[in-house]
Amino acid sequence: MINAVHKIEEVKKQVNEWKKQNLKVGLVPTMGYLHEGHKSLIDRAVKENDKVVVSVFLNPLQFGENEDLDKYPRDLERDLEVCEKAGANLVFNPEVLEMYPESSCSYVNVENLTKGLCGAKRPVHFRGVCTVLTKLFHIVSPDKAYFGEKDAQQLAVVKKMVKDLNFNLEIVGCPIIREEDGLAKSSRNIYLSKEERKAALILNKSLKKANSLMENGERNAAKLKEIIENEINSETLAKIDYIEIVDSENLEKLDKIEKTVLVAIAVYIGKTRLIDNFTFKLN
Amino acid sequence: MINAVHKIEEVKKQVNEWKKQNLKVGLVPTMGYLHEGHKSLIDRAVKENDKVVVSVFLNPLQFGENEDLDKYPRDLERDLEVCEKAGANLVFNPEVLEMYPESSCSYVNVENLTKGLCGAKRPVHFRGVCTVLTKLFHIVSPDKAYFGEKDAQQLAVVKKMVKDLNFNLEIVGCPIIREEDGLAKSSRNIYLSKEERKAALILNKSLKKANSLMENGERNAAKLKEIIENEINSETLAKIDYIEIVDSENLEKLDKIEKTVLVAIAVYIGKTRLIDNFTFKLN
Repeated sequence: MINAVHKIEEVKKQVNEWKKQNLKVGLVPTMGYLHEGHKSLIDRAVKENDKVVVSVFLNPLQFGENEDLDKYPRDLERDLEVCEKAGANLVFNPEVLEMYPESSCSYVNVENLTKGLCGAKRPVHFRGVCTVLTKLFHIVSPDKAYFGEKDAQQLAVVKKMVKDLNFNLEIVGCPIIREEDGLAKSSRNIYLSKEERKAALILNKSLKKANSLMENGERNAAKLKEIIENEINSETLAKIDYIEIVDSENLEKLDKIEKTVLVAIAVYIGKTRLIDNFTFKLN
Repeated sequence: MINAVHKIEEVKKQVNEWKKQNLKVGLVPTMGYLHEGHKSLIDRAVKENDKVVVSVFLNPLQFGENEDLDKYPRDLERDLEVCEKAGANLVFNPEVLEMYPESSCSYVNVENLTKGLCGAKRPVHFRGVCTVLTKLFHIVSPDKAYFGEKDAQQLAVVKKMVKDLNFNLEIVGCPIIREEDGLAKSSRNIYLSKEERKAALILNKSLKKANSLMENGERNAAKLKEIIENEINSETLAKIDYIEIVDSENLEKLDKIEKTVLVAIAVYIGKTRLIDNFTFKLN
């Protein structure tokens, strides 16, 4: 069975040995409770690198005070199994104090891209994401790091951070993995009751409707948002957090579909906040 | 004559070649207008590394709106001479837009250590310092980076940032270099009129007095600060910005001298703001 490594220095030592042998290292950063979406990232990393590190770290810095840090699901044993089966070489599973000693006070943020979308209601979230990723990038020194397109804002933010701060690695975005009925895979899906699980389909359904209208020439963002809104509101268990149509790179709001856009939504199904999105490329 | 390299990619390429040959790289980050203080950093870097990069970049991000960015002295030709004579191998002198393209919006900050001392009156200063150093550390991938102890807060902040964010390099602090009469070397000394130049000696003089009292057993921080204050106020051209006695690592204010402390002052001589300090180690 693959072992979890808990200490930063141990990871650095292992990675140094790999680098001396000129081996390419891929990193898949996760918060654990791995699902098929994570597995697809590990699969891709295994294909494209000589060695793959998966980090399993429930990062407290990216949770706000009233968010679900305490009840976030965990299952390290199963995570290790998933990593081993997928062919990962090292699982980094540090304690919180190993990553953030008590005196820790250094932070990284990508200001302009983190004010809207999920950042609007989660003001400290992306600062936490950027800070932990900066640490992981320095600890693992990966050649490539893998992120799901499901967290579209996170992917855009990380790409921007890497570009702005001249990190020496490539960020690879990987397609959303869905259940057979279309629900995007998420560790948070486990919170859903049977009834909520069914209601959650409205996220993907509303996006599909918008996508098909866009493919048929609809270019008015307000109109498209209204259609998504009406669709989601038809589901009584759903409560919209946001529906946005933005530039896929800088995440600025758009009135017209004139370039590659990200259509992103966040919706509460009962108490569980789910996100979904698609990117629409103009030919 | 040593050439200035202006492009990030050129520096990365050169450093990559060095790293392939297992050569140790030292970095001396500067804002140019090099004096003996900078030269001492380059000398030390040349001694301790196989290759030495000096960055000469007047970083706009660390200047506040009403600060002296525009009139800050520059002399690249002389800087190149200093670097060559000292044995540096590469001078990195990027344009502002090469370092900060217009869309740039990612920042690094060390929160707790940057609120007092120079950070109190210069609220964006250390965010600018941390951000440019993060970029330089990623561009140059140095094994060691060299900083003067004259900017004591900067040195403490950089050490903390490197520790908190797991950068893979060592920060080396180097002693303050002084003029024969005791004035700490600074690019800003050129602003001083003949009369002000003489008045500026009060910084070092007041610190020497405090140091000698501490060596003779004085442990009361308030009393020591008062003595420094009175000494500086005896000089009519001097206006105190701050006098602080703090923990040398976390920069927290202290009432009693019970561990290694930093005694740091900032004083306006006419319109020119000068800083000086010493570290007092308890045996």
